[in-house]
Order: sequence, then C-alpha cells, then structure tokens
Amino acid sequence: MIGVLVSGSGTNLQALIDSGLPVVCVGSNKPGVMGLERAEKAGIETAVFELGNYPDRPARDLAMADWLLDKDVEWIVLAGYMHVLTPAFLERFPRRVINLHPALCPSFAGAHAIEDAIAYGVRWTGVTVHFVDEGVDTGPIILQEPVEVKDSDTVETLAARIHAVEHRLLPDAVRLCLDGRVRLQEGSRRVMNA
Amino acid sequence: MIGVLVSGSGTNLQALIDSGLPVVCVGSNKPGVMGLERAEKAGIETAVFELGNYPDRPARDLAMADWLLDKDVEWIVLAGYMHVLTPAFLERFPRRVINLHPALCPSFAGAHAIEDAIAYGVRWTGVTVHFVDEGVDTGPIILQEPVEVKDSDTVETLAARIHAVEHRLLPDAVRLCLDGRVRLQEGSRRVMNA
Repeated sequence: MIGVLVSGSGTNLQALIDSGLPVVCVGSNKPGVMGLERAEKAGIETAVFELGNYPDRPARDLAMADWLLDKDVEWIVLAGYMHVLTPAFLERFPRRVINLHPALCPSFAGAHAIEDAIAYGVRWTGVTVHFVDEGVDTGPIILQEPVEVKDSDTVETLAARIHAVEHRLLPDAVRLCLDGRVRLQEGSRRVMNA
Repeated sequence: MIGVLVSGSGTNLQALIDSGLPVVCVGSNKPGVMGLERAEKAGIETAVFELGNYPDRPARDLAMADWLLDKDVEWIVLAGYMHVLTPAFLERFPRRVINLHPALCPSFAGAHAIEDAIAYGVRWTGVTVHFVDEGVDTGPIILQEPVEVKDSDTVETLAARIHAVEHRLLPDAVRLCLDGRVRLQEGSRRVMNA
C-alpha cells in the first residue's frame, strides 16, 4: 500500500492512480492544491500538514509519518512534494521513500532541473526515480530514462516531454518496488531490478 | 584540417582516420604510444611533447600549439589526451579544441567517469563531445549520446559499449564542426547544430 505526498497539481499522483496502483492516502504541505482534489475525486483519504501548524519541521514530519504509518502504508511516493524530508521522517521509512526528479541524476539536482539543463546546453537530459536519502536528489536510483533536448526546445517544450516520461516511469518504478523486484547490490548504492 | 592529441592507444584517432576526416598531424605527451604508431601507419606527421623536456607545462603547451599552428590546423581533437591544457594553449585555439568524455556531462567529470557511473548506480550514462574550456569536462556540449547501464554490467562491459559509441560520435561531431554547422547560441553556452 502506498502513501503519496504532494505540494501542487498532482499530475504524477494522477498517473499512479490511473495505473491502478494501491494509493491509500495523500498528504500535502499545502491546503487547497489540485493534488488533494484529485485524491478526493478518486475516493482516497487526504490530510494537510502545514508547517505553520507545528513547532518546527521535524514535528510536522513526525506527525505526517505517524499518519502514514497509521494507514499501514509501506511505500511513500513524493509526487511533486517540494519540502525536503527531515531525517526523523526518513528513519521511519528506511529505503521506502521514492522520489521523481526531472533530470538524469546526478546532473541538475535541485528545484530547477529543467531550466538548468537548458542553460547548461546538454543534448540529453531525462527522468530519474530514486530512493530518498538525506541529500537533495542523491539517493540510489531505481529507474532512469533519457529525453533528448532539441535545438528548438524551450524550457516549456522540454518540460512537456519530460513530464510525459515521468507519468510512465514513476508508476513503472513503484510497481517494481511493490513487486519486490528492487534490491540494493551488497555493499554498494547500485539498485538491481531482480 | 585537424590536429589530434593522444596519450595512449589512439582508438578514437583511428576512428577519425577511418572516417576520412582530414587529420594532418598527431601530437602526444608520451613517446612510443600506439596512437603515434597508428598515425605513422596512416602517413600522418607526428611529434612528441614530453613535459620533462620543457621548463614547465605552459612552455610545453606553447611549443605544441606552435607546431599545430605551423601545420595550418584549424581544429584540435583530444583523443584520449590525458593532460589538462593550459590557458596559453586554449587562447591560441579559441573554441577550436574538441574533447570526448565517456559520460553524459555534467555527470562524472574527470578521469574515472565509467567507474564513477557504475559506483553511483546510474541506469543511463553515455558519451559527450564538447569544446574544451579551462575546467575539466565543463565546456559547451556539441553532441551527446546515452548508453544504458545493465544490471549485469561491470566497468569492462560498460566501457566496451561506451567506446563503441565514442568511435561513432566523435567523427560525427568533428564533421559538424568542419562543416560550420556548430554555433553557440547568443549569450549562452548552448550549442546549436545549424
């Protein structure tokens, strides 16, 4: 069973729902976002964990983790969730938090991956699904797919093709995890899809 | 006309020769390497510029630049040339020095790109042909091609597939340069293949 965290439009949440994956609850750090609407429309339980309602970020993250554990969630998927998770959260879900990044990690970590790729002038970028660790977009990689950057591309046209790949790659990676087909190679950070 | 610099086996030099590109001279920082033998076999003039024979690296690089300019070379291709070129050399050939890197820049810069990609656990790496600037593998990108990393890959098996791509991509990129089909987008480091 999967819990999903969102901060915005939730198109990747929609891709998970449309793929028939067992999403049982959706949390957000922001009220009123489209991602929550999508969940409600699909009959999925939601909750909002606004930072301002907690003494600090670890307290907010712990409340969110408790809520997810209470729903018997085994996997957490970040679908456009824009806050970095504190160690307190990650310790509750060791190697169980999955994130999507719109670049071929380790290139272009951070919040502006598509803009950064265009500015750098790469001919290929892509999409990465990875486990979350305490760094930013640094965790072990589950799946990647390259996307070509064309001479005519703007940030907008490239983003559209990257998002289309995300909507396919994220459900594929989550299904591999659910099926027990993702394991870390002994003594390394290399993921094997057994 | 093209000058090529090598440090070792020169398989990428061979790919340039076999593609019919106008390689007119081959320099090496090491005597006796296979790259020099390949050049001689193809009837191409060679010279060795050992660091130990010059007061310092800039002096060596200037001697090498003078030799290349004397041959009316317009483009310099680094084909496994393992020394970083000093600014004095690069200033003589502004945006005219082409390098090959066995990864998708900006990932895995430096001398151990294939080992580093395997250790990081990327699912895709690749090959980059780029202009040389004063950084290590940081210059504007001419062409890239992704290469998939398989679960069964070792450094050796991955290197074999990467080298096969290099032998195709480097001649393609050099031909684009010779044909005047590579230009930098105004005010950016993005290369357009006009």
